[in-house]
Amino acid sequence: MKKFSKEYIDKLINLLDFSKIEGDLVPVITQDSQTNEILMLAFSNKEAVRRSLETGYAHYYSRSRRELWKKGETSGHVQEIQHIITDCDSDSLLFKVKQIGAACHKGFYSCFYNEFVDGEIKVIAEKVFEPEEVYKKQ
Amino acid sequence: MKKFSKEYIDKLINLLDFSKIEGDLVPVITQDSQTNEILMLAFSNKEAVRRSLETGYAHYYSRSRRELWKKGETSGHVQEIQHIITDCDSDSLLFKVKQIGAACHKGFYSCFYNEFVDGEIKVIAEKVFEPEEVYKKQ
Repeated sequence: MKKFSKEYIDKLINLLDFSKIEGDLVPVITQDSQTNEILMLAFSNKEAVRRSLETGYAHYYSRSRRELWKKGETSGHVQEIQHIITDCDSDSLLFKVKQIGAACHKGFYSCFYNEFVDGEIKVIAEKVFEPEEVYKKQ
Repeated sequence: MKKFSKEYIDKLINLLDFSKIEGDLVPVITQDSQTNEILMLAFSNKEAVRRSLETGYAHYYSRSRRELWKKGETSGHVQEIQHIITDCDSDSLLFKVKQIGAACHKGFYSCFYNEFVDGEIKVIAEKVFEPEEVYKKQ
């Protein structure tokens, strides 16, 4: 992704509506830019959107840890942003990314691997890494 | 989608974590099941998830109107659910759907048509219907 200048970043952030989610957040869908597979859903505040636009790497806001979070900071599984798209109401974002490694901290490429089938949850993906091995590195 | 029995629906709804968004909601990503294009992002409460599982048609909760909402009720642009998938934390849903008509009330197939490019918003899709014509029918 082409980096944006500070002036443009301010302008773009002002276009977004952060008022609808407690804590001034927008939901962010992250999608593999090549296959269109959905990788995860997270939330970003203004600072996380700003850092994403400045660096070209996906940043989110962790509601549980209450802090800005660069995806892949611990695991190395960063997301290089290719496209940033907002929706008709400017209250959600779509990051189309090149995923390094895998998106899910449980070891799957995508966080969306649990399908509702016949009243049961069926795991529809294969693990691509062992979380214990990746996260013990830190 | 195969319809679920009441017993299974209760079980599946109990697996989901509605506690993270004010109003007991989960974000729902809606994706074209054939092309993987993302169509929209909305929110559902338990009742909207229940109605989706019971009927096979996507239902959401409108935060602005504060009511359950069947997608396409006015426009006819309903979404036939093919797969329902939840994520690793069970706090988000993915509906893979067959979209009848188009998803966006502004006349686009997908709500995600505004890309951030060079500090400007660029419309990256073509309108597929005229909202005034579709919504005046009611």
